[in-house]
Amino acid sequence: MTTATATQPAGWEQRFSQSAHRMTSSIIREILKMMSDPELISFSGGMPAPEVFPIAQFQEATQRVLEQDGRRALQYSVTEGYPPLREYLAAKMRQDGADVRAENILIVNGSQQALDFLGRLFLDPGDAVLTGNPTYLGALQTWSTYGARFATVPVDEDGMRTELVDGVLAGSECKFAYVLPNFHNPAGVTLSAPRRQVLLEAVARRGTPIIEDDPYGELRFEGEPLKPLVAYDPERVLYLSTFSKTLSPGIRLGWIAAPAPVLDKLVLVKQASDLHTSILIQMVAYDLVKQGVMEPLVQQIRALYRQRRDVMLAAMEERFPKGVSWTRPQGGLFLWVRLPEGLDSMRLFRKALEEKVAFVPGQVFFPNGGGANTLRLNFSVSAPEVIREGIRRLGKVLAEALG
Amino acid sequence: MTTATATQPAGWEQRFSQSAHRMTSSIIREILKMMSDPELISFSGGMPAPEVFPIAQFQEATQRVLEQDGRRALQYSVTEGYPPLREYLAAKMRQDGADVRAENILIVNGSQQALDFLGRLFLDPGDAVLTGNPTYLGALQTWSTYGARFATVPVDEDGMRTELVDGVLAGSECKFAYVLPNFHNPAGVTLSAPRRQVLLEAVARRGTPIIEDDPYGELRFEGEPLKPLVAYDPERVLYLSTFSKTLSPGIRLGWIAAPAPVLDKLVLVKQASDLHTSILIQMVAYDLVKQGVMEPLVQQIRALYRQRRDVMLAAMEERFPKGVSWTRPQGGLFLWVRLPEGLDSMRLFRKALEEKVAFVPGQVFFPNGGGANTLRLNFSVSAPEVIREGIRRLGKVLAEALG
Repeated sequence: MTTATATQPAGWEQRFSQSAHRMTSSIIREILKMMSDPELISFSGGMPAPEVFPIAQFQEATQRVLEQDGRRALQYSVTEGYPPLREYLAAKMRQDGADVRAENILIVNGSQQALDFLGRLFLDPGDAVLTGNPTYLGALQTWSTYGARFATVPVDEDGMRTELVDGVLAGSECKFAYVLPNFHNPAGVTLSAPRRQVLLEAVARRGTPIIEDDPYGELRFEGEPLKPLVAYDPERVLYLSTFSKTLSPGIRLGWIAAPAPVLDKLVLVKQASDLHTSILIQMVAYDLVKQGVMEPLVQQIRALYRQRRDVMLAAMEERFPKGVSWTRPQGGLFLWVRLPEGLDSMRLFRKALEEKVAFVPGQVFFPNGGGANTLRLNFSVSAPEVIREGIRRLGKVLAEALG
Repeated sequence: MTTATATQPAGWEQRFSQSAHRMTSSIIREILKMMSDPELISFSGGMPAPEVFPIAQFQEATQRVLEQDGRRALQYSVTEGYPPLREYLAAKMRQDGADVRAENILIVNGSQQALDFLGRLFLDPGDAVLTGNPTYLGALQTWSTYGARFATVPVDEDGMRTELVDGVLAGSECKFAYVLPNFHNPAGVTLSAPRRQVLLEAVARRGTPIIEDDPYGELRFEGEPLKPLVAYDPERVLYLSTFSKTLSPGIRLGWIAAPAPVLDKLVLVKQASDLHTSILIQMVAYDLVKQGVMEPLVQQIRALYRQRRDVMLAAMEERFPKGVSWTRPQGGLFLWVRLPEGLDSMRLFRKALEEKVAFVPGQVFFPNGGGANTLRLNFSVSAPEVIREGIRRLGKVLAEALG
């Protein structure tokens, strides 16, 4: 701009909100930047296996939707979501025993948007949230921007140690309890049926709502499915799930099921936030489920991930030194490794990169610190021979560290 | 849940955040609920004409993208957006004179998400924002949830009265100034070139950033295009636009161009908010622009909307009583009607519904009240004969009100 007037710099830093000042780039993000090496074997992401994406069915579905109802698929739509898709999701949840109607469903851009909206709906700076220790990083990140504190409960082989929930709630009033009941990210464990009961009773005594985050529930390789928490107490449990681990993460499609007073507010959040989720994507996803794509697809994914988990477990058995232990997940995408006390997986991570293998250092999943001797491995995205080679490299790094 | 323990109700209302308590259902939302009558002629929405949606081209593009790169289109992707689409948008903005690179572009789910993210990035409760009076309702709604106050500047035939901006900024420190330079929603007016200069000088003196919201800029029917504000001062102006008024609103695709310190933070907001915008949608949109769909499409839309604007203006000339005046937009989707002082368009709205015609009462666009004698009409979505009949009905309502 050519003008004689003195101009002031924009001074962006001083103009940012409190919330913006709480946003910092995550260690994970920094890690991912380091990983452009094509020879690197990465167990660090959370990506589904692309070889089972139903590409041909997506082609057919988009053709059909645009052919039959193109004007609707490309026009503005209602905030709540595409009505037939809401009906389908409610019916699916009723099959799992949850008393949910289409009016209880809000369609969102993947589970992350659900987590963010719930933060916006419930959290003021200083509010406490009860979480497992460790817990899902994406939830910690978005709720931190709202100024949340985290009151944590340890996680073991049977999931969150729910016998401790009552005591934690007594010590710190929590806006809600956040639970990943099935094939926990990062720990790979599943909350046992007795613990589900203990948790529901503890929160019911204090009136604390539960956020039940269930992105992996359908990906069970073995054992009996457990009833979701929302099936026991639909008036207190807000249930989140997603198409990201089945149809595709690239379409960004998930949902929240919530009682009417919460859903009404969530609709206002969604409207202020981005009006609605792509109606083209919603109609294509509904076409896919209506064509019966889900059942065979989920079977295929289960078989594939089960095989990859087994390959990883066998390789770990063979390659990892004594003193290292790990979880044996019954489903999902991740397993969790515990190193002897005193080892620091963040330091090991740098050595692992030199050996061209990557994982996520576990400490990022612990909201209040700790977990330095843990790490997360993903088994969904790598082929068996890649898993074997990666675990061989990682075993070498661990053996040297323990040496 | 069958348990002997006394349970507490969830008590949702008391658990909601300050932000949630600021969210209230808008009058527009309530109005839209009343409008299921199929005989109603509605000038109240802001929808593009669906008959020009490039449906066949969308079919071809989705086939091509899924065929050639389906695994990428359905997998997780980077938060910033699809790199070729960012390149395209930066190049397009450079053609308009703005010094913008791909690294300055963040892809979002339509402009509403951009407005929301900027609220989250800049606004703490009590912060002031400078806006036109009237201004875009969607911006007021999302920024209100962050607790913003609005310092307003009147809008006339040449857009915001920018000679008053300096005084408003002197009286109230504003986090940013929000401007709709082209074919203003709701007022239909365009900020003149001299006023753009005055505005840029006023904000530069105080270091105030500008948010330039330009959803309709390409839809100019007549007159010379004016240089966007971002072309004068890319270090101070954050520019927003969208594919909603060209390719399709149903795909939810827009972008923000911002200087590096702002874009870096916006990427963190996007990551916490929903990880990334659908990569399938981004790749399809990029395929469409690469195939050259935009130029002929935009020509077609301009011709169509120009005709509809002309039909509406002619019908108003014929049917509206003396004392009623209106803007003559050079582009966009809306025109703005001013009734004699003392008339209340909210009251007229109910009478109009009885006559089966709808508009948006203008007062909703005034952040601090006022504007009772104004209303907004949309001319993009109705066919000419429908526009004529709707204006005939509205003319009758106005004539009766004016006695």
